[in-house]
Amino acid sequence: MTTDIAKRVYDHSWKLDPIVRSLLDTDFYKLLMLQLIWRRYQDVEVTFSLINRTRHVRLADDIDEGELRAQLDYARSLKLGKKEWIWLAGNSFYGVKQIFEPRFLEWLKDFQLPEYELSRRHGQYQLDFHGPWTHTTMWEIPALAIINELRSRSVMRTMGRFELDVLYARAKAKLWAKVERLQKLKGLRIADFGTRRRHSYLWQDWCVNALKEGLGEAFIGTSNVEIAMKSDLEAIGTNAHELPMAMAALATTDEEVRQAPFKVLRDWRDMYDGNLRIVLPDAFGTAAFLRDAPDWVAHWKGFRPDSAPPIEAGEQIVEWWRAKGQDPRDKLIVFSDGLDTDEIEQVFRHFDGRVNMSFGWGTNLTNDFRGCAPAAREDLDPISLVCKVTSVNGRPAVKLSDNPAKATGDPAEIERYLRIFGAVGREERALTV
Amino acid sequence: MTTDIAKRVYDHSWKLDPIVRSLLDTDFYKLLMLQLIWRRYQDVEVTFSLINRTRHVRLADDIDEGELRAQLDYARSLKLGKKEWIWLAGNSFYGVKQIFEPRFLEWLKDFQLPEYELSRRHGQYQLDFHGPWTHTTMWEIPALAIINELRSRSVMRTMGRFELDVLYARAKAKLWAKVERLQKLKGLRIADFGTRRRHSYLWQDWCVNALKEGLGEAFIGTSNVEIAMKSDLEAIGTNAHELPMAMAALATTDEEVRQAPFKVLRDWRDMYDGNLRIVLPDAFGTAAFLRDAPDWVAHWKGFRPDSAPPIEAGEQIVEWWRAKGQDPRDKLIVFSDGLDTDEIEQVFRHFDGRVNMSFGWGTNLTNDFRGCAPAAREDLDPISLVCKVTSVNGRPAVKLSDNPAKATGDPAEIERYLRIFGAVGREERALTV
Repeated sequence: MTTDIAKRVYDHSWKLDPIVRSLLDTDFYKLLMLQLIWRRYQDVEVTFSLINRTRHVRLADDIDEGELRAQLDYARSLKLGKKEWIWLAGNSFYGVKQIFEPRFLEWLKDFQLPEYELSRRHGQYQLDFHGPWTHTTMWEIPALAIINELRSRSVMRTMGRFELDVLYARAKAKLWAKVERLQKLKGLRIADFGTRRRHSYLWQDWCVNALKEGLGEAFIGTSNVEIAMKSDLEAIGTNAHELPMAMAALATTDEEVRQAPFKVLRDWRDMYDGNLRIVLPDAFGTAAFLRDAPDWVAHWKGFRPDSAPPIEAGEQIVEWWRAKGQDPRDKLIVFSDGLDTDEIEQVFRHFDGRVNMSFGWGTNLTNDFRGCAPAAREDLDPISLVCKVTSVNGRPAVKLSDNPAKATGDPAEIERYLRIFGAVGREERALTV
Repeated sequence: MTTDIAKRVYDHSWKLDPIVRSLLDTDFYKLLMLQLIWRRYQDVEVTFSLINRTRHVRLADDIDEGELRAQLDYARSLKLGKKEWIWLAGNSFYGVKQIFEPRFLEWLKDFQLPEYELSRRHGQYQLDFHGPWTHTTMWEIPALAIINELRSRSVMRTMGRFELDVLYARAKAKLWAKVERLQKLKGLRIADFGTRRRHSYLWQDWCVNALKEGLGEAFIGTSNVEIAMKSDLEAIGTNAHELPMAMAALATTDEEVRQAPFKVLRDWRDMYDGNLRIVLPDAFGTAAFLRDAPDWVAHWKGFRPDSAPPIEAGEQIVEWWRAKGQDPRDKLIVFSDGLDTDEIEQVFRHFDGRVNMSFGWGTNLTNDFRGCAPAAREDLDPISLVCKVTSVNGRPAVKLSDNPAKATGDPAEIERYLRIFGAVGREERALTV
């Protein structure tokens, strides 16, 4: 075995192994939402904040602050590359050409991530992004990916060469066993939604490759724009809770708060059509949403229930479509809430033939190392880390969710929202990821 | 990612990737036996022949004859390296210094593997090694390792990059799961005996590393001399069936045949003592051996039952020791016949505290890829391939074994041996490996 001396010396003199190396290493829906925000809400100031729902994991103890700053600073140095820009302009998304308008792409050419505020408190990092919504929104995914990967790295630094070898061998074997189970679901459509919670970039890339190799046509793409571009896959995703949360926070009356979710849909409808019209109904409770929704919402392509138990939520939506005279078999439900193989199988079999489905598979795809280390340890288990809108033009933002464990915002504001939307169907369920 | 162009060009211009790269890439017992053969039987001519007991696997269809010849020819080019020679001379084996006498090591300096005869018949290779026993004996292990690895290679050539990745990840996960089970057996002593049947050299090396990392003190070493040297492990092994088989073939009367196993032990006793005095009792049936054995055999350190069911064979030996006034707790039984985790656990628990035990773990350690390929296939499953003494000074050689499925030799000769030794305790059992 000949050692390449130059390579070895170079490898050992790395200053930084950057986690996020491209502005497109983010979720596709961020770009669709960004275009909307850029067109309509350029003057809105939004704060995003890191929230670690797994409180017993003390991130500030596990992750070195200097390393975290170095990674965040590196991400701030990124600008859209030329070939990335050309790809965004020239590629079709969801079958539509030029989904991004030329002026938006021009604006994006100069985009860089804005400043961040980082401090430590009670063993956690307080990480906030203040500024124009058009800028702070783009921090969500890279911030989460950076923290999750720094956490993995800090654990793996304590492991030997052989332990790491077994760790990844087992993680690969574990994922492939899941792939083999999913192969049995004829007509399955599943996408990678695991960017934010991934163990690492390289691991997400491996997982995507595994789904591509193992599932063929059933693997419909990835939410990760950079990986989609690199691997000629479909970029998947539409919109997220930040839209109704910001609209509700901007509202000046309770009635405007109540109408906020529908204002979002109107904004969306003006920009995107067809398969991009997917409703995310649970920001303030799915039951309230369906109760108050105007009839035209029933003409949208589908729903993405994201916090209620999937079969229950799906049945509720199917029933609602029927009540509105829609045939669910023309419709799509995108399941995306903390899924793993068991639940995917159950949900698929439950709805097979009754409604079109697709699955957005996140944390349990790209960060399932439970039981994989040679010596039993839990510090590689995924945590429930999010980066959420906390204030909009200085006003507090709230998410109620169908699961109170996923609610965010000031308790008094949550109370107010609960008075407006009601609490029907909300039920506390443990968050595993 | 920068490609090292020189390395890539070099890698793609390889003429041969040699499987056996050192004369010490063989089992340790071959060297102990070789010293005995060299001292006492330099004028004996012995033929070793390849026998594929897994007939439905047509090796001559799977393995290219040109490649096989190239590998065998490469092995013939090998001579003992200087540092290998120094290590054999300077290392202690089984706690004994200078186990190899200087004149033997001088002779070994010039040793090279002798010619081979290769032809094809009914989809199998006919591979024979004719010549002085001192030379042909050394072909057994490299010939088997070469054929087994060429078979693996021919299968893996049909697999893609990703399939291979999953294959090895699963094989690693599978082996590590076995290691975790063995970790629970307190006081276990286990060695790698998997050279001849290994999937590949690199894989055996990984497996040895896994046992070292996972089992600590319970892992007592490897039969592979080269790996033992490289990794500072104990080289393990004593003697094999070729000794009694050759002695019996050389015998001129039935009584000499009957005494052949004990003549072997006398020869061995003159050269080796202490823990190297391990009896291999099953060449012509364990029951016959124990019935006819002189009392002094009971003073040897232990037995290696190699073809009877291990618990049954162990009980037989323990009872024999007791009958001879020996305390089994001072004795050692080495189990080595086609073991895997289930059987190791059963045997260990059965004899724990009653007799010292060690385990020689072979095929199921270094070649268990069953169920590991992404698409179900059996062509990576191990086969029951051996290389046995077939004639000695022109006379036919026979092994009866405790399991008729492991018997070798001319049927008429087997009949004669059965008349001499009897068939007590012989019972046909399927060979999985």
